[in-house]
Amino acid sequence: MAYLLRTAGRVRASIVRPTARAVSKAAPTALQRQYASAAAAAVSPDAGEQPFFPDEPSQPIVKTQIPGPKSKAAIERLSNVTDTRSLNMMANYQQSYGNYIADLDGNVLLDVYAQIASIPVGYNNSALQLAASSPEMVSAIINRPALGNFPQHDWADILETGILSVAPKGLNQVFTAQAGSDANELAYKAAFMWKRQQERGSYDAEFSEADINSSMNNQAPGAPDMSIMSFKKGFHGRLFGSLSTTRSKPIHKLDIPAFDWPQAPFPALKYPLNEFASENAAEEKRCLEETERLIKEFPKPVAAVVVEPVQSEGGDNHASPAFFQGLRDITARNNVLFIVDEVQTGVGATGKFWAHDHWDLQTPPDMVTFSKKAQTAGYYYGNDALRPNKPYRQFNTWMGDPARALLFRAIIKEIERLDLVNHTAATGDYLFAGLQRLSERYPQDIQNLRGQGQGTFIAWDTPRRDEVLRNAKSHGINIGGSGMEAVRLRPMLIFQKHHADMLLERLEAVLKQ
Amino acid sequence: MAYLLRTAGRVRASIVRPTARAVSKAAPTALQRQYASAAAAAVSPDAGEQPFFPDEPSQPIVKTQIPGPKSKAAIERLSNVTDTRSLNMMANYQQSYGNYIADLDGNVLLDVYAQIASIPVGYNNSALQLAASSPEMVSAIINRPALGNFPQHDWADILETGILSVAPKGLNQVFTAQAGSDANELAYKAAFMWKRQQERGSYDAEFSEADINSSMNNQAPGAPDMSIMSFKKGFHGRLFGSLSTTRSKPIHKLDIPAFDWPQAPFPALKYPLNEFASENAAEEKRCLEETERLIKEFPKPVAAVVVEPVQSEGGDNHASPAFFQGLRDITARNNVLFIVDEVQTGVGATGKFWAHDHWDLQTPPDMVTFSKKAQTAGYYYGNDALRPNKPYRQFNTWMGDPARALLFRAIIKEIERLDLVNHTAATGDYLFAGLQRLSERYPQDIQNLRGQGQGTFIAWDTPRRDEVLRNAKSHGINIGGSGMEAVRLRPMLIFQKHHADMLLERLEAVLKQ
Repeated sequence: MAYLLRTAGRVRASIVRPTARAVSKAAPTALQRQYASAAAAAVSPDAGEQPFFPDEPSQPIVKTQIPGPKSKAAIERLSNVTDTRSLNMMANYQQSYGNYIADLDGNVLLDVYAQIASIPVGYNNSALQLAASSPEMVSAIINRPALGNFPQHDWADILETGILSVAPKGLNQVFTAQAGSDANELAYKAAFMWKRQQERGSYDAEFSEADINSSMNNQAPGAPDMSIMSFKKGFHGRLFGSLSTTRSKPIHKLDIPAFDWPQAPFPALKYPLNEFASENAAEEKRCLEETERLIKEFPKPVAAVVVEPVQSEGGDNHASPAFFQGLRDITARNNVLFIVDEVQTGVGATGKFWAHDHWDLQTPPDMVTFSKKAQTAGYYYGNDALRPNKPYRQFNTWMGDPARALLFRAIIKEIERLDLVNHTAATGDYLFAGLQRLSERYPQDIQNLRGQGQGTFIAWDTPRRDEVLRNAKSHGINIGGSGMEAVRLRPMLIFQKHHADMLLERLEAVLKQ
Repeated sequence: MAYLLRTAGRVRASIVRPTARAVSKAAPTALQRQYASAAAAAVSPDAGEQPFFPDEPSQPIVKTQIPGPKSKAAIERLSNVTDTRSLNMMANYQQSYGNYIADLDGNVLLDVYAQIASIPVGYNNSALQLAASSPEMVSAIINRPALGNFPQHDWADILETGILSVAPKGLNQVFTAQAGSDANELAYKAAFMWKRQQERGSYDAEFSEADINSSMNNQAPGAPDMSIMSFKKGFHGRLFGSLSTTRSKPIHKLDIPAFDWPQAPFPALKYPLNEFASENAAEEKRCLEETERLIKEFPKPVAAVVVEPVQSEGGDNHASPAFFQGLRDITARNNVLFIVDEVQTGVGATGKFWAHDHWDLQTPPDMVTFSKKAQTAGYYYGNDALRPNKPYRQFNTWMGDPARALLFRAIIKEIERLDLVNHTAATGDYLFAGLQRLSERYPQDIQNLRGQGQGTFIAWDTPRRDEVLRNAKSHGINIGGSGMEAVRLRPMLIFQKHHADMLLERLEAVLKQ
């Protein structure tokens, strides 16, 4: 279906014309017309770089204000039956392709937000299309098992050839879930069970009568006064347990009861990093000391510390590998679990498959949670003691979703086939260099540029952030924010240098506006 | 593809041979051989009743102990990479069909547990197979949107022709989710936001500085000391907020921190109901009075009361329509929301599409949550004031799943095409009558038979419950329990009288054992 083309010494690229044509064939002819009109004004891609999606539009098409009249009508209809106040753009996915997202009014935008960082290998990717129409996918959709009770006979195989084939080093087991929020909460539950068994003295120790009776009344010791520690500006989801560890913004938390759990300071680094090396090292040291102090002194014993490799919703806040190594050391010596939340950072976007691969840890995290680009979710672990000591302790009806696990397997194969992790590292470096040049010309509008060496996981601050995001749309770019004033880039793994060129050019036009 | 056959005055049945054949064709020939051997010993179905799945095995096949040798090997392999301590049976879904679940060792069981009540219209149902292989399903799988930001253009149509086409009376809006647990938690969040806006005096009232600042520290007033009231023995999920309302069993709750929220007593009815009418009425009155007292006196203001129409995981505990009418009245007059958790009871199994349709409420519940047989999840609501007053308050990345919403639409069509809700009401009455006869012969083993007039949502108590469940397997029946000593029946909606006959016959053999 696809063949590889090796160009002289350049990144390996793949031409997928036959299946890509099949996709185009299925799509409405309106898209073909759009492609044709875009091609007329095409810029040629970076010499020698073959596009992953050869039939991708060669540039964005902006035909109307967004939302245009057709989108407005569709939004109004949707508003009758569900809340649309957070709606950004009404999309037409049948007409979207590769890095480009389309709407109902003929607008086709270069998408560097990618469904809040969750689309890995392009809209209407033909390899995923094949996987999604396979008989085993159809069976997974219509015969959804209660995985904890009645797993399908090939579940081990699906895990081993998919989710576990990319397991973080040192973690060889997984508990599957449905989304980032519940993946984190399941990890927290495993941590609490582990910590209480530690207190009882052994993995196999029985519950006391007091434990059993008080648990039914939501009281200690059965429902223990323990905590999960997270970091200021951290984001770990919005269900009740995960939201108690989320510290991103008031609007995420207001009016929702929360557990009284501790929050440690996260380093506020100054940029450019090389100018502030000693200040930043001192800041990280301060945060680590405060973290350890809180673990020792917080009145509710801490079962685990959870941290994002890059705080994403909270404003794209980075820290150094030394900081995370320090966290690993502190948690280990205080007998507290170390959970790395890779829901947004995982699956290649930082130029490593897992962002914590950048840290060179001596011992792995205790649990790593994942979702978004994996299109499924769960937590990896390696220590058998993290399996609760009795059946039905970590349990729910579906416990994940084989259909989405099959999709992740297809995504992994596509990432490997196109070498997309290395590709993203290289594209990220290229894009970062371009943004550095731009920041020199527009220092007010591109402040604290960050994410160097972190693939395309790049962000900067600007005082007129919401205006920039809005204006970018009229320049053909769909882009997102994080925190109060950050512009965050979250392109897909198939984002290439010619897309970076186009993004830079159009960003400059936005800044000139 | 399918045509209707109307038999003289009897339930409408449908012959789906052409598509069913297509299914059989795809399935391995081993299954065909099993069918053939089963057919040799076939009992003829209840005269005049046409099978919904004409190629279904005519009776169970038990070839080995369960698990057999092949299943044991597969379980061992799976145990290496994930916890299998709750595993009941390793299934082969390619070989499962209609009401029958197959394993790797050639065993084919009549399945009246149906993935913990979550399979609605049969394994490898051909109508669902068509829906699952449609181009729109493929697009929904590979182009999964962040529904709150970038919904697909036909999302309103998918909702209106699917999820909302079966909305409970009086509720015309929906917030979609992924599973029962998060559906309940999202409903709780909506309730807390609503309650706090009430306290602020108006829907549009702004947050105070104190609200904003304290929310970030997980403290009141921003993270308010409010509560959700649930009932003893209730089950509403196992994430941190939902688990705080779950009161089913210690093993569900032990070692997990919980909110100090109130629990009201749920009526403990005596059976048979007609012999204990006045005692039961008094018991329900007592529970209602205690519920109202707790709402008035519990120190953390109650934002909502959540209740299952039939407490399922907690042991299949029923109450009368009068009890639920009383709850509706109490919540209304105390300005507390009334959430009905139909995760397990919804979608036809009780002989109404929603179990609360049995109650004849004067005003609808404020929210109704759903999942399981819907194969998607969420909460229905009708009151615009339950839409949080600002964007991004009720939000997460995926906010549901169009692929699963498309599947629910196909399930609804299949339910309507085969009139499965009325069918289940009739089959349930037939099955209940048979169980009554059996309970007269085995009064020790079938105690407190309950669920009359509730479709196939039937249960009874037996002191040797776990033994019965285990022995049922060797008699070709896959059956589940609930609570400490209940056997619960949760067949699919395509369960027919001839299946009921077979179930009764084999249950008797188990009891004789």
